[in-house]
Amino acid sequence: MKGIAYSLATVVALTGVIVYMAHASEHAAAEAAPIFDVTIPPGYRDWKLISVAHEAGNNNDIRAILGNDAAVKAYREGKLPYPDGAIIARLAWTYLASEENNKVFGREQSFVAGPPTNVQFMVKDSKKYAATGGWGFAQFKDGKPAEATLLKTCFPCHVPVESRDFVFTHYAP
Amino acid sequence: MKGIAYSLATVVALTGVIVYMAHASEHAAAEAAPIFDVTIPPGYRDWKLISVAHEAGNNNDIRAILGNDAAVKAYREGKLPYPDGAIIARLAWTYLASEENNKVFGREQSFVAGPPTNVQFMVKDSKKYAATGGWGFAQFKDGKPAEATLLKTCFPCHVPVESRDFVFTHYAP
Repeated sequence: MKGIAYSLATVVALTGVIVYMAHASEHAAAEAAPIFDVTIPPGYRDWKLISVAHEAGNNNDIRAILGNDAAVKAYREGKLPYPDGAIIARLAWTYLASEENNKVFGREQSFVAGPPTNVQFMVKDSKKYAATGGWGFAQFKDGKPAEATLLKTCFPCHVPVESRDFVFTHYAP
Repeated sequence: MKGIAYSLATVVALTGVIVYMAHASEHAAAEAAPIFDVTIPPGYRDWKLISVAHEAGNNNDIRAILGNDAAVKAYREGKLPYPDGAIIARLAWTYLASEENNKVFGREQSFVAGPPTNVQFMVKDSKKYAATGGWGFAQFKDGKPAEATLLKTCFPCHVPVESRDFVFTHYAP
């Protein structure tokens, strides 16, 4: 046992790999996404609901859009641009037919959230992200940030809704 | 003008109709649903998200299921039955194809929340609602409660998920 313990310690000392892995699983939020340096905001799963959506096609997901207090306040007051500190979270899950629900309804009609796919964030900081409309963009899958090449595609896609401060989702009353 | 004012006052005095209408629009939450005597819980739109779903068929809606703190705590801890005081809210909106989003995606794939359809609540009170698994059921459309005939259909439909304390929706992580 001592021999094994020594070997592990040596591996860790030489590579840092095990230390890093433990860190990643326990504190995934600490790993920042590239380009915009966004980390997973603590407690985002408790945020208030902005709206819901279904994306068919390649995504094939069902999603919820949540906002921190600054974002939801701006939404409800209809105030643009969103203030610095506002964060919008897009959670998505696999789009699943619910056999259980369909049995009760007596027809194929019910689609529910399956396993999570990924989480995206838009973080407002008008100075830090001045080059991208004041928004920083990030995506995480199982706590791991997406690569820079993907994040580079975020802002150009949001340009068509510049009049709504680059935010697609409307508030669902 | 005085004549008109007098006429309105007379109508109100005789029928109470205008007084009632003002009350309904400003304090919709005060009107209780039949059978279970459930009123709209204050602040439910701020509750935490449990999951999302799409019901096709006659409903043709997209929905979010929210819970008050007692309900969400029980969900996250996997504790059954839900404690007295737990409330689960089901918000639904018309299922709308988003032309705006589809243009950006370059294909017909995006469905979003349109105008709200109705809101449903399950309220846990194991004594008051002992005859229906400990749950009271209610539905409101524009603040107006649904009729007793509709609410009588709620509990029988939930019986197939008795093993999950009569709750269909699974928590979306």
